[in-house]
Amino acid sequence: MRILLINGPNLNLLGTRNPEVYGSMTLADIVERVRQRGEQLGAEIVPFQANAEGAIIDFIQTNAPGADGILINAGAFTHYSLAIRDAFEAVGKPFVEVHISNVHAREEFRHHSVLADIAVAQVAGLGWRGYIAALDSLVGILKERQ
Amino acid sequence: MRILLINGPNLNLLGTRNPEVYGSMTLADIVERVRQRGEQLGAEIVPFQANAEGAIIDFIQTNAPGADGILINAGAFTHYSLAIRDAFEAVGKPFVEVHISNVHAREEFRHHSVLADIAVAQVAGLGWRGYIAALDSLVGILKERQ
Amino acid sequence: MRILLINGPNLNLLGTRNPEVYGSMTLADIVERVRQRGEQLGAEIVPFQANAEGAIIDFIQTNAPGADGILINAGAFTHYSLAIRDAFEAVGKPFVEVHISNVHAREEFRHHSVLADIAVAQVAGLGWRGYIAALDSLVGILKERQ
Amino acid sequence: MRILLINGPNLNLLGTRNPEVYGSMTLADIVERVRQRGEQLGAEIVPFQANAEGAIIDFIQTNAPGADGILINAGAFTHYSLAIRDAFEAVGKPFVEVHISNVHAREEFRHHSVLADIAVAQVAGLGWRGYIAALDSLVGILKERQ
Amino acid sequence: MRILLINGPNLNLLGTRNPEVYGSMTLADIVERVRQRGEQLGAEIVPFQANAEGAIIDFIQTNAPGADGILINAGAFTHYSLAIRDAFEAVGKPFVEVHISNVHAREEFRHHSVLADIAVAQVAGLGWRGYIAALDSLVGILKERQ
Amino acid sequence: MRILLINGPNLNLLGTRNPEVYGSMTLADIVERVRQRGEQLGAEIVPFQANAEGAIIDFIQTNAPGADGILINAGAFTHYSLAIRDAFEAVGKPFVEVHISNVHAREEFRHHSVLADIAVAQVAGLGWRGYIAALDSLVGILKERQ
Amino acid sequence: MRILLINGPNLNLLGTRNPEVYGSMTLADIVERVRQRGEQLGAEIVPFQANAEGAIIDFIQTNAPGADGILINAGAFTHYSLAIRDAFEAVGKPFVEVHISNVHAREEFRHHSVLADIAVAQVAGLGWRGYIAALDSLVGILKERQ
Amino acid sequence: MRILLINGPNLNLLGTRNPEVYGSMTLADIVERVRQRGEQLGAEIVPFQANAEGAIIDFIQTNAPGADGILINAGAFTHYSLAIRDAFEAVGKPFVEVHISNVHAREEFRHHSVLADIAVAQVAGLGWRGYIAALDSLVGILKERQ
Amino acid sequence: MRILLINGPNLNLLGTRNPEVYGSMTLADIVERVRQRGEQLGAEIVPFQANAEGAIIDFIQTNAPGADGILINAGAFTHYSLAIRDAFEAVGKPFVEVHISNVHAREEFRHHSVLADIAVAQVAGLGWRGYIAALDSLVGILKERQ
Amino acid sequence: MRILLINGPNLNLLGTRNPEVYGSMTLADIVERVRQRGEQLGAEIVPFQANAEGAIIDFIQTNAPGADGILINAGAFTHYSLAIRDAFEAVGKPFVEVHISNVHAREEFRHHSVLADIAVAQVAGLGWRGYIAALDSLVGILKERQ
Amino acid sequence: MRILLINGPNLNLLGTRNPEVYGSMTLADIVERVRQRGEQLGAEIVPFQANAEGAIIDFIQTNAPGADGILINAGAFTHYSLAIRDAFEAVGKPFVEVHISNVHAREEFRHHSVLADIAVAQVAGLGWRGYIAALDSLVGILKERQ
Amino acid sequence: MRILLINGPNLNLLGTRNPEVYGSMTLADIVERVRQRGEQLGAEIVPFQANAEGAIIDFIQTNAPGADGILINAGAFTHYSLAIRDAFEAVGKPFVEVHISNVHAREEFRHHSVLADIAVAQVAGLGWRGYIAALDSLVGILKERQ
Repeated sequence: MRILLINGPNLNLLGTRNPEVYGSMTLADIVERVRQRGEQLGAEIVPFQANAEGAIIDFIQTNAPGADGILINAGAFTHYSLAIRDAFEAVGKPFVEVHISNVHAREEFRHHSVLADIAVAQVAGLGWRGYIAALDSLVGILKERQ
Repeated sequence: MRILLINGPNLNLLGTRNPEVYGSMTLADIVERVRQRGEQLGAEIVPFQANAEGAIIDFIQTNAPGADGILINAGAFTHYSLAIRDAFEAVGKPFVEVHISNVHAREEFRHHSVLADIAVAQVAGLGWRGYIAALDSLVGILKERQ
Repeated sequence: MRILLINGPNLNLLGTRNPEVYGSMTLADIVERVRQRGEQLGAEIVPFQANAEGAIIDFIQTNAPGADGILINAGAFTHYSLAIRDAFEAVGKPFVEVHISNVHAREEFRHHSVLADIAVAQVAGLGWRGYIAALDSLVGILKERQ
Repeated sequence: MRILLINGPNLNLLGTRNPEVYGSMTLADIVERVRQRGEQLGAEIVPFQANAEGAIIDFIQTNAPGADGILINAGAFTHYSLAIRDAFEAVGKPFVEVHISNVHAREEFRHHSVLADIAVAQVAGLGWRGYIAALDSLVGILKERQ
Repeated sequence: MRILLINGPNLNLLGTRNPEVYGSMTLADIVERVRQRGEQLGAEIVPFQANAEGAIIDFIQTNAPGADGILINAGAFTHYSLAIRDAFEAVGKPFVEVHISNVHAREEFRHHSVLADIAVAQVAGLGWRGYIAALDSLVGILKERQ
Repeated sequence: MRILLINGPNLNLLGTRNPEVYGSMTLADIVERVRQRGEQLGAEIVPFQANAEGAIIDFIQTNAPGADGILINAGAFTHYSLAIRDAFEAVGKPFVEVHISNVHAREEFRHHSVLADIAVAQVAGLGWRGYIAALDSLVGILKERQ
Repeated sequence: MRILLINGPNLNLLGTRNPEVYGSMTLADIVERVRQRGEQLGAEIVPFQANAEGAIIDFIQTNAPGADGILINAGAFTHYSLAIRDAFEAVGKPFVEVHISNVHAREEFRHHSVLADIAVAQVAGLGWRGYIAALDSLVGILKERQ
Repeated sequence: MRILLINGPNLNLLGTRNPEVYGSMTLADIVERVRQRGEQLGAEIVPFQANAEGAIIDFIQTNAPGADGILINAGAFTHYSLAIRDAFEAVGKPFVEVHISNVHAREEFRHHSVLADIAVAQVAGLGWRGYIAALDSLVGILKERQ
Repeated sequence: MRILLINGPNLNLLGTRNPEVYGSMTLADIVERVRQRGEQLGAEIVPFQANAEGAIIDFIQTNAPGADGILINAGAFTHYSLAIRDAFEAVGKPFVEVHISNVHAREEFRHHSVLADIAVAQVAGLGWRGYIAALDSLVGILKERQ
Repeated sequence: MRILLINGPNLNLLGTRNPEVYGSMTLADIVERVRQRGEQLGAEIVPFQANAEGAIIDFIQTNAPGADGILINAGAFTHYSLAIRDAFEAVGKPFVEVHISNVHAREEFRHHSVLADIAVAQVAGLGWRGYIAALDSLVGILKERQ
Repeated sequence: MRILLINGPNLNLLGTRNPEVYGSMTLADIVERVRQRGEQLGAEIVPFQANAEGAIIDFIQTNAPGADGILINAGAFTHYSLAIRDAFEAVGKPFVEVHISNVHAREEFRHHSVLADIAVAQVAGLGWRGYIAALDSLVGILKERQ
Repeated sequence: MRILLINGPNLNLLGTRNPEVYGSMTLADIVERVRQRGEQLGAEIVPFQANAEGAIIDFIQTNAPGADGILINAGAFTHYSLAIRDAFEAVGKPFVEVHISNVHAREEFRHHSVLADIAVAQVAGLGWRGYIAALDSLVGILKERQ
């Protein structure tokens, strides 16, 4: 089983900035933990990070066809990138939207996601654990569908 | 460690109605799975279900002081019970909001939660696995805070 | 054929308060008239009134499975009880929403019903006759479906 | 007693189009049933249908003064014809608004009626029976007022 | 100088209905007074009334080219007839919008006019005198432009 | 008969600024014309202009009790001075709101008047003639009421 | 004279939670102070607290007919319980809405009360003194009406 | 193949009014061009123009059943005639909405069409060529469906 | 202890106008009652009334530094005078907003106060007693803070 | 004559995804058809596709100055890329907005285009034929302007 | 060159109140700095401060005709004084709107200026330096225009 | 001291397009002027321009840590790039938002900035001088903080 792990703009700064909001783990740390859990669950993790919307769309178009599911923390793109939304709709693979912080407790503009209504699920506020939680459940759901 | 597991109105019907939306597991099945996982994690689970808002508030007021955290699927109360919100604010214990279905992909009125901005986290769309995912993360977060 | 007749909060005061809005018949009078008409139509009427949302949900969960249809005047709950709405969705029985007064001619907040879009029909402004009119039509519709 | 029965635009197509929404009875069938029921109740029915707003206003101005009440299914005019509303206000006769389908369960623009707040009542979703239900109640109300 | 005097739907009922809102003069009375004042001012008055939007548009298209200005009380069409608005825009003759009652003190929907922003002026609340006031001023303005 | 003629902020600049919008007559010219017409109609005109809201309120409180009616062009205060509105409500004398330009054809914020719904009438877009038109009608209305 | 003193959801926790917002007096302390002041004013105080909307409606229906007035701090129900509002409308007794904290300075959803427009008065932000202030004034008003 | 070509209110004035917005071709010119292109494509064109909403509905009801598709420039009715919308829904024939000018670049009220979401397509801003473009494509689509 | 008592526009008319809304006591009567109560409580009352926003701001800037607290009935300024709000913010003294009538039961525009969220408290609907109630509580609060 | 043909994000997937919405032709097929039609009309077609907003802006800046007009299907960027809008404004060349599907019949967010009001025209719902229709008309318009 | 320097309500308190928001310089200090910079640039500065809207309008009407440009910090009037806006429109001199604090980072109501769209420019958040920055640029712009 | 000078999409076209809106200076000219002024103030200027959002985010992430402050004209990204906003939040360096034109006087969508509330200041409408004004003030503020 192959799972894409996409992180959007500014998430490459994780662990070095605003640790009170996003925690002290770096993106590399999180990717490694997700990779390890994936190993336990029999799922290969394909990580990707970009600050550019177009790069994320390119990655989805290229890699989603060969993957079983996707975890995405689209960062700020969550709230306006209809182009990423369309990419997900086009490739048609199940994805889970993850947010490290509880977006519903932050600025008004972070309450709305343009991805959530076509996602399988949304996980917000569980910190780095949210990626693990989403992976566990997504793999479980995918196995059930087989 | 003690975790309250609160389910709101109509969740007692889980497994018997609309299985295409909510899955085929009954609430008893889910409670049992959460209990087992709690056991693995060293957390006692205190389950409760009610169709009445007042009963849920009473339960929170009575039981939250002796608990470490709370998992709640408030059902439709999620969207308007400011009184349950106030109960959570009053007792001040960390809670995670769980939804079996992806509320962001359903009717407009289900997109807004009056609880989410004072919750630690919100998990929606992972089915019964959402309870397990929320429990795993909440216990992890609580242990970290100790 | 069995029809539930549910009346929500404050409808127990019918006939004794605001007769210029709600008429001078008591709830007991109306229930009796509905019962008599039900008898003519071959339908058993199961009446229920409560001021508590939870009690109405319990009643629906318990009694709807054994009934053919439901008449409900949800009173003020019409405008915000998403939990009652969910109960109706869960039990899946056809119901007609009845209002004694013409809610569309009263305060703005009474113009919107959170039940109406999943109801079979809405009848408002026909006074106590609205219950009879709704019963006649609901029984007719149910017989046609058989 | 004389009751006008007004049907607005496109209702002349009843029974031949979209039977899953509007049923399979033609407008002539419905008019006949209403006429028969009117006969039982001692009410003469004066039917009228037009696709033109001006024609409906002319009809109301001409015929309402000699009538006791009005049943109207204004079709799409329900949602924007302030001119028909003004006609009703001017003639001052009690009228009931009837909709064959449950307008509250259809497109957003069908939820609002510019007539409802000056009508006696609104009946929606009872199919052709809605006309009968409205007639029964309207006649009852008119007799009571005498 | 030739001035069209257009009255929209239900204004043919003036004087016979709601005299507390619209006064007790009939439309014929008002037309006569406007005609007399026009005579004093050297302006021929061409009166027209219709309940049908299309008839008003036809009248404007046919008669405006040969006229110098227009007085219109569009009745309820004031609030939604974009087609009459377009007719005015197309013929390009100056017109004044007249309302017998003070529309700004009535229902919310009467506060907005789809004609007013392309009119020369709007007069509301002066009763039948509003027609005279508008005529006086319009003739004055037209003479000044010559 | 005594009529107050109140002009609000910046109307003292009439005739010297933006003549394409407001015409080339000065406020003194207009006041004189209104005074002359008042003389013809048997009405004494009491003119007043101020740029300060408080001064206008003081004037209304002091002079309205001895007057029969009021003409007011409140300028920009039209759109937000609830204090002037309250002054009119308190003194209870009939007033007509006059605007030289057609406010409905200008910026969005000029479309709404906080005075209009308690005024007898609103006249907008007739230039200086609007004052005369309003005076004619107001005097007519006042005489009729006597 | 008999005055009902109703406190809604979570107010039983007063004094033990969030003292910086709600003060350090318990509900029992407040009730006692109100009782004592009532005694001075010749008014019997009938206290009641419940977390359940239905229980508050039942209490109002049962006790209001024998009371002269009501003080209510409806807690979060203030903002959405149309059913409590209807109960007040039905029993028709004068009531004053009290809030310990200044609701206008808190979350947006606390700015709107569904009760306030049918209340005699609203007092917010005066702490426990708000109950005394409301009682003093309500008794004064009631005596004046006698 | 038979294609209806419907033009709504004021479009009979094309070429004689506002040529800078609508071009200098008359409606007759455009109809002739569409007819010629239809001939090339093997499609008979049935033209119709009316200023009255009811007349357009009558035309659609009568002629659509015998036609394969419809081109309509509904003029101002585009923005509010729900009755024409219902007529299209009732007859169920594919239609293309054409606008000579770019409605999206004009007044706000012209940005919304009540027809567009049930149309096959919308073409705006291509001038008289828009009719040809729409005809070409509609015929292509209809042939493909056969 | 020194308490400012500020009354805004039109409150100088109290007792002489609209007694059914504002009662029959004059402003002088109310000021005297407040002064007497202040004397009982050991608080000097400094009364002020103005119809001009600037005068009220000047008064606040000059007198608040030497005062302990402020009672203000800002009249219509309550709803839009951001400049008075800024004056209160600048001087930083605790103030209570008083309204004689229940503003929440009147026009929509009276429901919102631009002062309330920086006030200690808001009292509305208690008539002249509201000033006394506010004074009692404010003095109590101020003594407690000492 | 030179025409740019720009396709935005995810349009490179045409023909391989969601053929029921977008048809079964690939982007290459469409580009070829447009190229051929361009050849017939004497217009050179310069095609371009990118998933990145910045790349589309770069392309417009570089190529528009040497082109006569532009066809663009901006995909999801249609709804939020104000930067592409600014690029079009800056280069000042006429462009037509093309959508394969009828965006007005899809999700709410697809109804609004941030490009349309500065475009010459918008064509939506004609499938691949929309490009041809737009090309035909744009070339016609450009030739007319020469 | 002559530049008016207008400061609105409460700005006379600068330096003595809320220094964390507005800095510790007094208005006199700022005026002096602006005066000195004006001297360097060859511009005479005419300072004015008032808490009263009418006084500011009077000052603009009287002094703007003899000035070349205006700097204004209208304080809270920025957000609602349409009368000051009209004064600026009437005198037609270029003005720059200055705010000491970053109004876009404060309360929602401070985000909108009723002056900004007719100003040359808006400067917010640069502290006292904003006046200097605005003066430098305004003088530069005025010299360029000469 | 090091100051980043970031210019967003389409600003590379400055001086060559729409000079009536943006002036006739090229971006290179402006950068040079800013560089020179920086030299006078002892500040090194690091200029950057890109049409791609991702490139701007990369630049901020890479260069902000070594800089003291930032000037940014984000062009159209000002209005929707939440990702750039997040980059600024993450790096935590003070920045000033500059707009050449007065965005508050242009299209509605240009009135709102998603950056402004986390910026130090916003300068709009001062032309190229706005960059100098912002630099002067930013350097002054930074020196003061040292």
